Amino acid sequence: MGAKPKIVPNGTVTSPKGFSAGAVYAGIKTAREHVLDLGILYSHGPCNAAGLFTTNAVKASPVLFCQRTLRDHRAQAVVVNAGCANACTGEQGDKDAAEMAAITANKVGIAVEDVLVASTGVIGKPLPMGLVRTGVGSVALSLEGGHDLALAIMTTDTFPKEIAVSTRINGDRITVGGVAKGAGMIHPNLATLLCFLTTDASVEAGLLQQALQRAVDVSFNMVTVDGDTSTNDTVLLLANGMASGRMIKAGSPQAEAFETALQIVCLHLAKNIARDGEGATKLIEVTVEGAATLDDARRAARVVASSSLVKTAVYGCDPNWGRIMAALGRSGAEVEPTKLDIYLGDLCLVRGGCSSHFNERTARALLAKKEVLVRVCLKLGEVTATAWGCDMSPDYVTINSAYTT
Amino acid sequence: MGAKPKIVPNGTVTSPKGFSAGAVYAGIKTAREHVLDLGILYSHGPCNAAGLFTTNAVKASPVLFCQRTLRDHRAQAVVVNAGCANACTGEQGDKDAAEMAAITANKVGIAVEDVLVASTGVIGKPLPMGLVRTGVGSVALSLEGGHDLALAIMTTDTFPKEIAVSTRINGDRITVGGVAKGAGMIHPNLATLLCFLTTDASVEAGLLQQALQRAVDVSFNMVTVDGDTSTNDTVLLLANGMASGRMIKAGSPQAEAFETALQIVCLHLAKNIARDGEGATKLIEVTVEGAATLDDARRAARVVASSSLVKTAVYGCDPNWGRIMAALGRSGAEVEPTKLDIYLGDLCLVRGGCSSHFNERTARALLAKKEVLVRVCLKLGEVTATAWGCDMSPDYVTINSAYTT
Repeated sequence: MGAKPKIVPNGTVTSPKGFSAGAVYAGIKTAREHVLDLGILYSHGPCNAAGLFTTNAVKASPVLFCQRTLRDHRAQAVVVNAGCANACTGEQGDKDAAEMAAITANKVGIAVEDVLVASTGVIGKPLPMGLVRTGVGSVALSLEGGHDLALAIMTTDTFPKEIAVSTRINGDRITVGGVAKGAGMIHPNLATLLCFLTTDASVEAGLLQQALQRAVDVSFNMVTVDGDTSTNDTVLLLANGMASGRMIKAGSPQAEAFETALQIVCLHLAKNIARDGEGATKLIEVTVEGAATLDDARRAARVVASSSLVKTAVYGCDPNWGRIMAALGRSGAEVEPTKLDIYLGDLCLVRGGCSSHFNERTARALLAKKEVLVRVCLKLGEVTATAWGCDMSPDYVTINSAYTT
Repeated sequence: MGAKPKIVPNGTVTSPKGFSAGAVYAGIKTAREHVLDLGILYSHGPCNAAGLFTTNAVKASPVLFCQRTLRDHRAQAVVVNAGCANACTGEQGDKDAAEMAAITANKVGIAVEDVLVASTGVIGKPLPMGLVRTGVGSVALSLEGGHDLALAIMTTDTFPKEIAVSTRINGDRITVGGVAKGAGMIHPNLATLLCFLTTDASVEAGLLQQALQRAVDVSFNMVTVDGDTSTNDTVLLLANGMASGRMIKAGSPQAEAFETALQIVCLHLAKNIARDGEGATKLIEVTVEGAATLDDARRAARVVASSSLVKTAVYGCDPNWGRIMAALGRSGAEVEPTKLDIYLGDLCLVRGGCSSHFNERTARALLAKKEVLVRVCLKLGEVTATAWGCDMSPDYVTINSAYTT
């Protein structure tokens, strides 16, 4: 059903039909960070909408606001700022999130109930609402504004994360676009991340939420940077139906084609978040094969990818596979040490739980690459899962020891 | 019952009556590490013995050996090496652990069933048994040998950890001594640690194991350095009864006095392990008060103490309390964000989940101390727990990115 999805050259969150975006420097970020810090994403027509939010019990005001607003599964715009998370800000924080939505609704001429709000940055400081009001007022929306939005949501990210993918469904060319930010506080359920996804496909609201959950489960929920889960994690998906009049329904081949495109977008953004982890120099991809259950496979892959000792060994190009064994052993997944094999790329490091007496120089060369592939064969079942993380360099500490000041 | 326990000046694991120890440089550690790397702890008479071991599914050969040997709750000697963990070494590893025990038994003239074995160091390399044999043969045991044993078990530790405490029970002065090593792979259940505890009290075997479990639960199991649990964690407790003929039994006031002394020893060693975490410059003590359950209190304290973002903020003297809030929120403990208060020493940072508008300079001064005290009041119940960790400096990465080589 449908052709293979294609990457849209220079694709952004505004690549799907009928989406505009824009961003300004409102002054919320300090100057040493990035120049844009407030943006708006706007659909030219009403959208079915889906969202997923942090599992942290401490939820920022904009997260609570979105959860209420999304009860009707409808939205048409997103307003977002970086530099201040509006988290742990009490009732004033709730009022500020609501006001951000209200002034955005007023600006673009839609109901406040159709505006979603996201914030990222330092926890515990009130939003500088004077700057926010002026900023929202001066955003210029355009069909080419997606890239600016990707820049505006960055905090300690070193590059913007964006992509668009198009695919043909029943003769209609539909596009899925996305932007994300990550960098720190990145850990499964969800990574500390903001991600806004758009599509011009027409998708029923129930399917949209399920498709988002499934795509996030194999992408953002398999990314780990530092084991911390933030108060602000937010993934939003807006579908405006402008590419096709035919509604995509759950269980159909069209739904499958749409989900494939959505997963490509989410996987690309998630891997770039891992690659751009604070202080990271390499992407680590950990695939666990032959697990007894999906939960075991996911758990084992994530624990290996998030082990500080594995991350520092990869940074130092040190083929210290004992740390991978130790991480597997404490993961809680079913593991039989004497059965398992560990590969680095195609190089077998461990066979049956012991050293394979590999060539250390070859192993070091594989660890020196920008993408380090670890494969674990548990030989207990048929299930596979992949997690992504990054190495840990001294810069991780430098970045995080002086973030608020 | 009994006077207040007293710290024995320059106390070691051989401070209790009837214990000798000794250590040599066998050549297992590389020269740039420490000069002693193999030691023996020996009781002049048979002991009741208790042990606790790593929860990691990947267990080193000496751990499996001790678990078998301790089934009869008796032991009389411990042989230990640093520099090689004898983990993930297959059947050869099991044979090597057994041979270490056998040559030690032969040397001191006891049954092999009464010798326990421990190893720490790099995973996956076979024990250099030639060096081990020569080393065991050349160890000279003495009543003053405790300090050498403390040095011999160090890996990336920067100082030896040892203590002895004496207390009076029914007129008998009994002593509890201990040595430990930590530094990396330190995380609850158990920390990556070796710890050998001795006492000249006479304690029934069942009580000995229970007392050890309770002491470890509030000490080593509340210490975290980097979130990794090792394959070799081992805590052993030998009681030779040489200070008193009267057996201490469970449920008695004597048992309580003994446990108090044992906990003082374990807490001292555990805190020093946190203080000496790899790359650490400060001890972080996190106390969670007012939790609904003990599990909640323990979980919340440990998650805050182990958060990479909290650890880097403490290193940078950055009063970024939002990271503490975020860690509490993801801990899985019951938390009501709008109820909780957070203190740094006596300085209130957070009241009811929001900033207390504290003096930042005062907060920075408190974070610059060698011991940073974080106190969280959840206000949901009556239960308190304390966890210990350390800050994370760029040295953590430097140390761990080049450990095997």
